[in-house]
Amino acid sequence: MKRSSSVRLRLPPPKLAKGKSFPESLRRRKTTREIGSKPLTLQTLSNLLWAACGVNRTKGPFQTPGVTAASASNSQEIELYVALADGVYRFNAHRHELARIVSGDLRAFGLGERQPNVAKEAPVQLIYVVNLHKLTHTTGFEEPGLHDAEIQKSYYFVDTGIIAGNVYLFAASQGLACWFHNCNKTALTTALSLRPDQRVLFGQTVGYPAKKARVPRP
Amino acid sequence: MKRSSSVRLRLPPPKLAKGKSFPESLRRRKTTREIGSKPLTLQTLSNLLWAACGVNRTKGPFQTPGVTAASASNSQEIELYVALADGVYRFNAHRHELARIVSGDLRAFGLGERQPNVAKEAPVQLIYVVNLHKLTHTTGFEEPGLHDAEIQKSYYFVDTGIIAGNVYLFAASQGLACWFHNCNKTALTTALSLRPDQRVLFGQTVGYPAKKARVPRP
Repeated sequence: MKRSSSVRLRLPPPKLAKGKSFPESLRRRKTTREIGSKPLTLQTLSNLLWAACGVNRTKGPFQTPGVTAASASNSQEIELYVALADGVYRFNAHRHELARIVSGDLRAFGLGERQPNVAKEAPVQLIYVVNLHKLTHTTGFEEPGLHDAEIQKSYYFVDTGIIAGNVYLFAASQGLACWFHNCNKTALTTALSLRPDQRVLFGQTVGYPAKKARVPRP
Repeated sequence: MKRSSSVRLRLPPPKLAKGKSFPESLRRRKTTREIGSKPLTLQTLSNLLWAACGVNRTKGPFQTPGVTAASASNSQEIELYVALADGVYRFNAHRHELARIVSGDLRAFGLGERQPNVAKEAPVQLIYVVNLHKLTHTTGFEEPGLHDAEIQKSYYFVDTGIIAGNVYLFAASQGLACWFHNCNKTALTTALSLRPDQRVLFGQTVGYPAKKARVPRP
């Protein structure tokens, strides 16, 4: 693997017309750990990331763009890293593009060291990273909790869950499989060259449901 | 206010056919703090709670019912309390009913002591409470993290966010206003007679957008 921050991947504009209705997506929401290797198209990846925490209004709270996922004082402190077969990218919601942080296949780090041995070949590993600087320097409503380590935790984990929930519902709407889980924090912190004010939190695998192994009839 | 755990309110089965599409709900997702006093119908409250964390399959993971919101090892450890004008109820997702925990109007406790002075008259204050016993006694996948206080935090705050995200999207789909925020934990812990293994986490207000004050034309 090697550092490469120069590759930028412009995502096509999100197109979400096709898919299950909102109630039907809620009905189908579930965790599926058995996920196959079939890749997502770039359009589906674009749709997924937009649903997760993409810009849904250019003039949101405090005159900054608003996104599909709420965050503490609109600090948008959760950064979504996307591990694909050829590298790990950071999602820039405001530009709707991916910037490659490191090349090489690091998807296995998206899973925890004690995770069941499934989903290793899944096409997309989302990695949730908090950028504490964004919490303490929000352009939104300034309040003391944003500077308190314990309260920060409560905020950034809730904000992670809100994005993860959007991803679960998007997956359900599209017939995709989805699983939120622990990840290899130590390996990712090094591989992504994270700063001290960034912390790896969780991973979430997305792909197509694995085909069930056929049991031959006797 | 007085303790009253005998009142049970059976909710009508959820009916979500009407509403914006999933993509349109994502597009309209936002925080609205100015919320009026107009009550929700019992049907809308039923729909809201089902979308939040209602049962979406009777045979879910580990042979227990699955719900619309993912949780750590399917422990379903977040309990949703619902403060209405006449009392605070606890939502029982498996029975789809509300059990009154205390009577009296405690909606103001759903807001934090430093919250902006809005939404006091909103019809519904959801109160997120973690039941740690459910985390440590899950019928789901047993793992050491479920017994570690720091890891527990990361799980129950994420699981709170997943429910809160469902509520935000439901509100967006129905033209309702929604705001996730701090709450008065001390007052609620006492008023709801919570056990030591239960902790109040956050509040979320839901209602109709407040009508804007009309500025008379000169």
